[in-house]
Amino acid sequence: MLQFEGNVRTDLALEASEQLTRKNQSNIDGLAIETIEDEDVIITRVDITTKDAAERMGKAEGRYVTVEALGLRYKNTELERKVMNYLTKELANILQLPEQATILVVGLGNWNITPDALGPRAVDKVVVTRHLKEILSPELKDEVREVCAISPGVLGITGMETAEIIQGIVQKIKPDVVIAVDALAAASSQRVTTTIQIANTGITPGSGVENKRFGLTQETLNTPVIAIGVPTVVQASTIALDTLNVMQENAFFARYLKSMASISDQDKRAMIDQIIPETLGDLMVTPKEVDRLIEDMALIVAGGINQALHPNIDYKNIHLYLN
Amino acid sequence: MLQFEGNVRTDLALEASEQLTRKNQSNIDGLAIETIEDEDVIITRVDITTKDAAERMGKAEGRYVTVEALGLRYKNTELERKVMNYLTKELANILQLPEQATILVVGLGNWNITPDALGPRAVDKVVVTRHLKEILSPELKDEVREVCAISPGVLGITGMETAEIIQGIVQKIKPDVVIAVDALAAASSQRVTTTIQIANTGITPGSGVENKRFGLTQETLNTPVIAIGVPTVVQASTIALDTLNVMQENAFFARYLKSMASISDQDKRAMIDQIIPETLGDLMVTPKEVDRLIEDMALIVAGGINQALHPNIDYKNIHLYLN
Amino acid sequence: MLQFEGNVRTDLALEASEQLTRKNQSNIDGLAIETIEDEDVIITRVDITTKDAAERMGKAEGRYVTVEALGLRYKNTELERKVMNYLTKELANILQLPEQATILVVGLGNWNITPDALGPRAVDKVVVTRHLKEILSPELKDEVREVCAISPGVLGITGMETAEIIQGIVQKIKPDVVIAVDALAAASSQRVTTTIQIANTGITPGSGVENKRFGLTQETLNTPVIAIGVPTVVQASTIALDTLNVMQENAFFARYLKSMASISDQDKRAMIDQIIPETLGDLMVTPKEVDRLIEDMALIVAGGINQALHPNIDYKNIHLYLN
Amino acid sequence: MLQFEGNVRTDLALEASEQLTRKNQSNIDGLAIETIEDEDVIITRVDITTKDAAERMGKAEGRYVTVEALGLRYKNTELERKVMNYLTKELANILQLPEQATILVVGLGNWNITPDALGPRAVDKVVVTRHLKEILSPELKDEVREVCAISPGVLGITGMETAEIIQGIVQKIKPDVVIAVDALAAASSQRVTTTIQIANTGITPGSGVENKRFGLTQETLNTPVIAIGVPTVVQASTIALDTLNVMQENAFFARYLKSMASISDQDKRAMIDQIIPETLGDLMVTPKEVDRLIEDMALIVAGGINQALHPNIDYKNIHLYLN
Repeated sequence: MLQFEGNVRTDLALEASEQLTRKNQSNIDGLAIETIEDEDVIITRVDITTKDAAERMGKAEGRYVTVEALGLRYKNTELERKVMNYLTKELANILQLPEQATILVVGLGNWNITPDALGPRAVDKVVVTRHLKEILSPELKDEVREVCAISPGVLGITGMETAEIIQGIVQKIKPDVVIAVDALAAASSQRVTTTIQIANTGITPGSGVENKRFGLTQETLNTPVIAIGVPTVVQASTIALDTLNVMQENAFFARYLKSMASISDQDKRAMIDQIIPETLGDLMVTPKEVDRLIEDMALIVAGGINQALHPNIDYKNIHLYLN
Repeated sequence: MLQFEGNVRTDLALEASEQLTRKNQSNIDGLAIETIEDEDVIITRVDITTKDAAERMGKAEGRYVTVEALGLRYKNTELERKVMNYLTKELANILQLPEQATILVVGLGNWNITPDALGPRAVDKVVVTRHLKEILSPELKDEVREVCAISPGVLGITGMETAEIIQGIVQKIKPDVVIAVDALAAASSQRVTTTIQIANTGITPGSGVENKRFGLTQETLNTPVIAIGVPTVVQASTIALDTLNVMQENAFFARYLKSMASISDQDKRAMIDQIIPETLGDLMVTPKEVDRLIEDMALIVAGGINQALHPNIDYKNIHLYLN
Repeated sequence: MLQFEGNVRTDLALEASEQLTRKNQSNIDGLAIETIEDEDVIITRVDITTKDAAERMGKAEGRYVTVEALGLRYKNTELERKVMNYLTKELANILQLPEQATILVVGLGNWNITPDALGPRAVDKVVVTRHLKEILSPELKDEVREVCAISPGVLGITGMETAEIIQGIVQKIKPDVVIAVDALAAASSQRVTTTIQIANTGITPGSGVENKRFGLTQETLNTPVIAIGVPTVVQASTIALDTLNVMQENAFFARYLKSMASISDQDKRAMIDQIIPETLGDLMVTPKEVDRLIEDMALIVAGGINQALHPNIDYKNIHLYLN
Repeated sequence: MLQFEGNVRTDLALEASEQLTRKNQSNIDGLAIETIEDEDVIITRVDITTKDAAERMGKAEGRYVTVEALGLRYKNTELERKVMNYLTKELANILQLPEQATILVVGLGNWNITPDALGPRAVDKVVVTRHLKEILSPELKDEVREVCAISPGVLGITGMETAEIIQGIVQKIKPDVVIAVDALAAASSQRVTTTIQIANTGITPGSGVENKRFGLTQETLNTPVIAIGVPTVVQASTIALDTLNVMQENAFFARYLKSMASISDQDKRAMIDQIIPETLGDLMVTPKEVDRLIEDMALIVAGGINQALHPNIDYKNIHLYLN
């Protein structure tokens, strides 16, 4: 398992590349990373273009864009708006939609588990328009694309794989693109509810807070799938592993260790099992204010989707589209 | 419109037949009514077997069973259990399922509008098992049918007709039967949250709190559809119309009227328009404790479905099936 | 009982005066009514200054200001802002607060019953500052009054009269004024969630959706009490009574009646009892979208309170006061 | 700070004593520990009877009883009932209430932060009876004590210290005892939502998920205060510290360390600061299913309180007391 080759679980391509850098393995053919910064937002575009790079990263080939703003941890309306606008731009770039298009937005995750509820809560706030085409005035009609949306619920709630449900709906509705919104696991607690990842790879099995066992991809849906994810948890074992890594990698702390030789992965695993017994199930690390932070991020993600899909809507008259 | 031929809007076949009785028109070929009572529950089975009877009733041909218990208005755990058991029996009768079967349970209605949320809240409490077939022990596996469930949300939330979504899923999952749970409008305020209707006709357009514009029937889904409905509202205009009807039909009050001749339907309509202007939108009459009553009814309906679909589950060990 | 002297139950002084006008009894010493209108808002100030006027109105002596905007039934952000600003101005006028003051805002009603939850939901959105006095910078500190807030819950939830709880807290905190927010019953379905009443009389027994049995007044609290109320329901019996009144008072419909003599109050009561049996408990008429409408009104009321109490806050930096 | 003398933050007296044992310091005058076990529940009674013992434990003098059942992590209705019954017995012992008594139950914590909401959610389910004394039949009346209940909300919501609010109410209601229910922080992730602590010390400053800055004690309220707490979080820094402690204390892992000499507390603090920067605010470790687990524990706690306060209620007729 990748996870215990000294690495910690992450759904962010950015963090996967940081882990390679830490081991001086980031100079890989087929891995390109571009970073743009301003005073409070960092945008990183990771392109994985070869099978080898994909394997080393533990991520599917494709483009991953992250918009990070550590300041989102604190209530800050102006920064929220700024991040929303960056998200809009990056999402529009990756979507490359024609003026007329039908888009299905899917909210993944379990609405009964707060840190897994990001998808459903964001989708709640997406402006759906597909049913309005017949009743909107001609001027309004030309301003909006046909957007529809659903949060199907997780396997334990429906008894159906999310992929089955979405396949059924896609075959009926025939959207030009599917946008899937999901909560993710990060390696770093700093990125929890402060980072948004857009990927043109869709959703791959094993990702997300609940470790999805299905995929939502071009292959499974016969339709392009853009994934938007926000890390909402760090696994508790990540904190334990981080502690050992910090000890080993920091010269100051390393003086406590008998030799510079590293602690074996097997022993790391054994220590972690003693601290966080598997019988406890998944323990997650989240900020105390996770309920509010997820609501805020759901608003930002939905706002970005709305602006990218309907660039011509006058959002002061948004109520004309709502019912 | 049926509604103002002196009649009031109702989704219950039982009430449609009562309105015919009131006008001495209930003696119709193709309409059979059977009633069973005990001290606190009344079960009525209405069979509509001809096109003519269907038209006069304003209901599709088929069987409609109501389980009524006025006492449900007050918290009464024993009565709730009793009604749940009657519902189980009537539902099992109408379903006639083989031992091995796949069932899709659909919760209709808008979870953001309390009186329309009965369907989604009941479906939340249905025991889904389809995904457990591979992991249950052989003994448990044979005890349960394959149940899956979804509450798709309403048109204004998804931008898709509920019928489109369910058609897509049905084509993928291929259930043997669909059970659709919905909130209804009643003619009598006494029946609100005290009555459950089972119908083998599916859901017909124009029914429900939100006046659905789609149908979920054998015709639209190529699968038998059993509808379970609970009245949660009376339209406010029903109260006004009732007032005029009581005045006219009760000899004591009728002495106020100039002649025994009835008030014309047109004038009734005009009076009601003055009291409840159409510009106000739908006004609904509900009990003050509607939030609690709908939660209670959702539990009864889900309990009835669970027991009818999984007669062999030991409900003390129900947690084995839940996650 | 006032209620069946041909009148219907209302908590609005404006409607009480309209009922007197209907019977040509509004020309009373000690009753003064002033109306200001613009294209979509009507402000009415009712002053009751004598005991006789109070008795005829069925309302305590004092000033009652209503801000009405029928357009609030539809989502309209600009109208909401306008009503909020009118509310701010009228509330500031009636409060006449010094620069330094401590205010206790109380949310009355049952948060488990949607139409009774207006008070708690508005109070949720009030900016509380009393605990910040020590930590705010001197500039910010001088900009805000000391506001604290509580929604104590109803008798059935706490086992304590709301008046007991508030008396205990008032004796401890010693506020200069108490503002009590409550959901009301209206006589007219048009005013439901479209009207706000401010009264300097406090809360009198018998008012509100749940017919409070306690008072929150200058007398019971030894502190001035300003009441802010929003009608969220009409009692179902009001619709029935309205039907009879419309029939009787409208010459066109009255031709159905044997003589112009009115239907006796006793017979009206008997008819209504037949339509809405007392055993059913309180039935309420509400708009179908009551959940959303109450959320919207809670925002308007809280916004009005916030602006009236903290006129100097820059609401773009509101997050400085929130945690 | 106690917290980094190699110890981790805990609100459980049981865990404080375990930390002393780990350092071979548990043999203290004035500290008595008694343990009772069956196959799935452990009851521990910790008595702190001297000032010195209190200081070493970091806990106030008094009695602390914990009821632990690791199996509560999984849905198990029978175990829940068993724990509820143990809680009832231990609580009744510590309360020693006369037949006639007035009890105020207080739910502490912030209902908007799931892991801090245990108190308010449990109090929601407590059977309040104080307001029924006048209306219950004489037989029922003698069966129940006068119970009232409130969840006042936290400082950031009300602008008032919880202690101020409860002091005001206690002076008005004059209860014989206050029961305060709160969410706690544990040192061990195994105890999260699987352990209940009863303490006759009341609530002390610094305890709870949100580190309360007030006390609710005999001293502050002039009334005995019994605290019931359930750990719902472990601080993320505890996981990091645990990792270092496991490494140091387990001979097998210790072979990686240069000498058996321990890592200095200062260096432990420095490592943890690098892993979990203070700027991130409080990170908490919770089980993924925290929403459901807290609901389950709220039911157990409320059930224990109800049975301890009203031993004579026939819980099949509980609806007679509810409204």
